[in-house]
Amino acid sequence: MATAEDTLVRFVVGFDASQIPADVRAVAREACLDCLGVMLAGSRQAPAVKVHEQLRRHGSGHAASVVGTALRASPMDAALANGTAAHALDYDDMGAFGHPSAVLLPAVLAVGESLDASGEQLLAAYAVGFEVGAALNKGLGISRGESGLHTTGMIGVFAATAAVSRLLGLTEEQVKHAMGVAASTPAGLVQNFGTHTKSLHAGMAARNAVMAATLAADGFTSNPAFLEGAGAMLAVYGKADTARLRANLEGLGTVWQMSVALTLKRFPCCGSTHAAINAVRAMFEAAPVPLDDIEQIEVGELPPASHVLLYPDPATGLQGKFSIEFATARALCDHGDITVESFADDAVSEPAYRDLLSKVRVAVGSKWNHGTEATFEDTTVTLRLKDGSVLSESVNRYAMPGTRKAPLDTAAIREKFEANCRRAGLESDALYERWSDIGAIGSVRDALAATAPVAV
Amino acid sequence: MATAEDTLVRFVVGFDASQIPADVRAVAREACLDCLGVMLAGSRQAPAVKVHEQLRRHGSGHAASVVGTALRASPMDAALANGTAAHALDYDDMGAFGHPSAVLLPAVLAVGESLDASGEQLLAAYAVGFEVGAALNKGLGISRGESGLHTTGMIGVFAATAAVSRLLGLTEEQVKHAMGVAASTPAGLVQNFGTHTKSLHAGMAARNAVMAATLAADGFTSNPAFLEGAGAMLAVYGKADTARLRANLEGLGTVWQMSVALTLKRFPCCGSTHAAINAVRAMFEAAPVPLDDIEQIEVGELPPASHVLLYPDPATGLQGKFSIEFATARALCDHGDITVESFADDAVSEPAYRDLLSKVRVAVGSKWNHGTEATFEDTTVTLRLKDGSVLSESVNRYAMPGTRKAPLDTAAIREKFEANCRRAGLESDALYERWSDIGAIGSVRDALAATAPVAV
Repeated sequence: MATAEDTLVRFVVGFDASQIPADVRAVAREACLDCLGVMLAGSRQAPAVKVHEQLRRHGSGHAASVVGTALRASPMDAALANGTAAHALDYDDMGAFGHPSAVLLPAVLAVGESLDASGEQLLAAYAVGFEVGAALNKGLGISRGESGLHTTGMIGVFAATAAVSRLLGLTEEQVKHAMGVAASTPAGLVQNFGTHTKSLHAGMAARNAVMAATLAADGFTSNPAFLEGAGAMLAVYGKADTARLRANLEGLGTVWQMSVALTLKRFPCCGSTHAAINAVRAMFEAAPVPLDDIEQIEVGELPPASHVLLYPDPATGLQGKFSIEFATARALCDHGDITVESFADDAVSEPAYRDLLSKVRVAVGSKWNHGTEATFEDTTVTLRLKDGSVLSESVNRYAMPGTRKAPLDTAAIREKFEANCRRAGLESDALYERWSDIGAIGSVRDALAATAPVAV
Repeated sequence: MATAEDTLVRFVVGFDASQIPADVRAVAREACLDCLGVMLAGSRQAPAVKVHEQLRRHGSGHAASVVGTALRASPMDAALANGTAAHALDYDDMGAFGHPSAVLLPAVLAVGESLDASGEQLLAAYAVGFEVGAALNKGLGISRGESGLHTTGMIGVFAATAAVSRLLGLTEEQVKHAMGVAASTPAGLVQNFGTHTKSLHAGMAARNAVMAATLAADGFTSNPAFLEGAGAMLAVYGKADTARLRANLEGLGTVWQMSVALTLKRFPCCGSTHAAINAVRAMFEAAPVPLDDIEQIEVGELPPASHVLLYPDPATGLQGKFSIEFATARALCDHGDITVESFADDAVSEPAYRDLLSKVRVAVGSKWNHGTEATFEDTTVTLRLKDGSVLSESVNRYAMPGTRKAPLDTAAIREKFEANCRRAGLESDALYERWSDIGAIGSVRDALAATAPVAV
């Protein structure tokens, strides 16, 4: 039986990109467009702006664009800046291994631009990287809450290293060395959620992937037994179940997790809050909710990833993105219409919100069995009114709007993209035209040039 | 009682550098000189050259020197390149948390040059960073072999972040955020020893430290409970013993581990092989050893860090640096005189060496209790000759030449520095003059300019 390493690198190097199923290509196209928009909006957020300041102050290379700015940078620095921007709003897609596109797209953009690759090459690299990350996430078993580690960083660097390796046309041996370098980089504490550092996790994973793959292209070495080796990922960070790891990797090229797992975000906050927000939204869609009459708000069946919801009473809007209490109370205040503006810093002190927050009770439902595999699907929000009446909505996390079971339609995706372009001060029409089908882009270099404002 | 975080940041920010004891200053001076020499020699080794190629191809900033080359780079990139160079030969110092100077010096040089700091500021930052790393290493308990993680990367990034924070004059609050960013970066697999990636561990730790501290200087945020927090270093990577952590940090500023723990390397290979090499050297110093008469070579009492000795029969000279079998057989071949040249790739195939290698038997001595704290002190090398006679030497790892109990003298340090300068094609006299007392350097910028060759 092939080792996990062999199976993985054969897929990265040998997979025939023309065999990517049409539905997977469609999801990848949407994800890349959506992530570019989020990255542009995120380029105006503090974490990205502070990374830009570093590059501006000390200089960088010239081969790659820092999206949303006039800055040029080395591929490593561009990946760092753009990954941080892509994840800064927590508005980027999710699924499989945390936040896939916020790591994958910056890495393939940076290297793709330096090579002046085509959009088709980027799309293939993105798809290959996504599937590698998805298979590793299931296979290694790092994603469990108790580890305290953020899969976006831990798994993302391998996904992006696979993607960049593909783009660079590395040999199987070189891909092994690239992945072995990547195995000496994964990190990221969940407890940094709600701070600038969370978005840096995506940036660092993208940067380290660019470093790993470009160094390996020049003959840099590592221990190529990066997965199954005695002191490798499975033993050090994972659950040390070789059969599980191999089984997941053997699906590469036939099982496509992207078309099942990738969720475009409808709201700019932690995915574990979305079901509750959608439940509130559904209530308001049914009828106006009399906020003054609410006595208690109950949130049932917290998601298995609820250890990332760190702030019962957030002090900033950024912390609010990782608060089920904030999300639920704020969604009620905003009548289900949670936007980027819902996370302004003064949103945490507004009296109407604080009154609602004081009424939120979070229950851990029976579907969440701590310490076992995730069985969560539904979140139920129940409003108990002063007159004794009860309003209740349940939303399935894996079937809510944005998931593959209820995908956002083209108009919604475009609307989100346009709003994000406006947040970066850019006209969206030409950008949408160029980026709505990444596979049709002739020159990534030209297409990225269009994302730079005249002067920043 | 103060939290571990509070104790640490108060030391970094508030410690009066004039209170650094004279013996500590002397050790720091020697370590910085020695590490600069090793870094210059390492700049000609493959791992560093491949990092240089990345910077040359894609460009970087201009604020910092890439030592031993004419390249200029951003402080992050310079720290990456110089850290990799410093560790490439495994000739840099060791102690406390793996390889301290290979992480600390590149980080403080890169930022020190960008600020045009004085050597005295660098020395204070280096000393503060060293002690923070030493205290964290004891306090967190990550250093145990079974983790599979390399403390040079895991702890080094905190040590260097503390050092750079000090150099940048960060506030206590900013240092907490810098350290919190660093807590989302530590990584490095021991199984990458014997490959180019091992030296990259030092480079990445230095680079991430520069990033963490410079971002924090601009107001970048993290979870400031980076040590004791519910999902912080102690819980996620360490042994979760808060009392142990606090007790170690409380010694900062009064207990100086540098003057006990820092060992300058006499041989360019893994420190866990040095006692065996010194034992062989001692045999040859006593009398010529008749190599043809040897029947068996026994190495007793492997050091507790022997899990890093990965290659019983190394295929390359680089792997040989992490092989007790290679070190012992090669030391016999070379009559105890192990040098950089002993690790040439053809050294693993030379017939005389292979004959000796086949006679090496490694015994785990009773002093090494697997799974408990290290109790190892001695390594005994015993030669059983064909005529039945026996030669034996024991060397205490903590008292061998280069340790603080038997420090290298000024002449030996200068000789090593000069040989390393020659390896980089540089004249050593002027460099020795400038760098033998880092505290006397007026301008780090000028002093570093002297390390650049006319053209590379």
